[in-house]
Amino acid sequence: MTVILELSMSLDGFVAGRGVGPAAPMGEGGERLHDWMGPDETGSAHPADRAAARATFATAGAVVLGRRMFDLGEEPWGDDGTFGVPCFVVTHRPRRTLVKGPTSFEFVTSGAAEAVQRAHAAAGDRDVLLMGGADLAGQCLAAGLVDEVRLHLVPVLLGAGTRLFDAGVRADLEPVWVSESPMATHLTYRIGRPTALN
Amino acid sequence: MTVILELSMSLDGFVAGRGVGPAAPMGEGGERLHDWMGPDETGSAHPADRAAARATFATAGAVVLGRRMFDLGEEPWGDDGTFGVPCFVVTHRPRRTLVKGPTSFEFVTSGAAEAVQRAHAAAGDRDVLLMGGADLAGQCLAAGLVDEVRLHLVPVLLGAGTRLFDAGVRADLEPVWVSESPMATHLTYRIGRPTALN
Repeated sequence: MTVILELSMSLDGFVAGRGVGPAAPMGEGGERLHDWMGPDETGSAHPADRAAARATFATAGAVVLGRRMFDLGEEPWGDDGTFGVPCFVVTHRPRRTLVKGPTSFEFVTSGAAEAVQRAHAAAGDRDVLLMGGADLAGQCLAAGLVDEVRLHLVPVLLGAGTRLFDAGVRADLEPVWVSESPMATHLTYRIGRPTALN
Repeated sequence: MTVILELSMSLDGFVAGRGVGPAAPMGEGGERLHDWMGPDETGSAHPADRAAARATFATAGAVVLGRRMFDLGEEPWGDDGTFGVPCFVVTHRPRRTLVKGPTSFEFVTSGAAEAVQRAHAAAGDRDVLLMGGADLAGQCLAAGLVDEVRLHLVPVLLGAGTRLFDAGVRADLEPVWVSESPMATHLTYRIGRPTALN
């Protein structure tokens, strides 16, 4: 049972462009970060991208995500909620669990660690997928809740936006998998015990 | 004739740890970034690392670097100056050209573009290697002086330090080469026309 942090990131370290909002959920230029997933549900034609996209959900038994990501995704994820597993939204705003077909969204107001723990329980022996955003990812990295980092490194410099690694966490990583296409380099690392910088 | 920006970078985007100075030229934890080059001149035992290290100087006819990097490197680079080609140091402090065996260091006070132009002239049909630091790299990226980016992405989170990409430059990249070892993922990109963010 592994907690996997998975995100698409520009070479200059951004997981969204600047100016994120309902009209631009990925910010200025940020849609580019998801191009490797392809223009529609058939995905990119490149085998490395297809394999990376499949791997994302192949082993996930539950999802943890931040409230802003949920707010931006609620509409586009559609009537079935896309994920097909229990999802745990870290938020300060209490809300009743939302069920969309095979997907449920439970709102956790007691912090990231509690959300990951509930996701663990829901996932059984399957993995927990931590999808961001960057704030939540930083909290979970700092708290040592992440076992594996799966980054899709996209060949673009966005120049500004939301940085993934901005929480002052120091850790050793062990590369376990690399694959590449013209659209992204897919990098998987196991993460050692983090230490917070003072 | 290509201008190649080459640097080792942590997964969280740092080319040096915090607290860079004469006692710690790579900053706190930053020596880790060069581990892939191996403990001595025989280098890492891994073929991907050895090939990446060889590629660095195989085609370089001249080097451009910043003054702080020169100051930190002057001693450790030894009596032959290590590089064996004409080097151009971007600085505000005039100084007479320094010759160390096969290596020369010319001090350019008229900016990065001028230094790159002189390096071009000195390199003939060989490449110009732009070695950083990060400030100079940012200036050259912003000015569109860089044709290729060669990053050695090191599996570590440093948490703080000097960021490579901090100059608000937006550009498309085209991956041309990826290789990996347990010590680093070696990434080569061709860089498109950059645009500065306003």
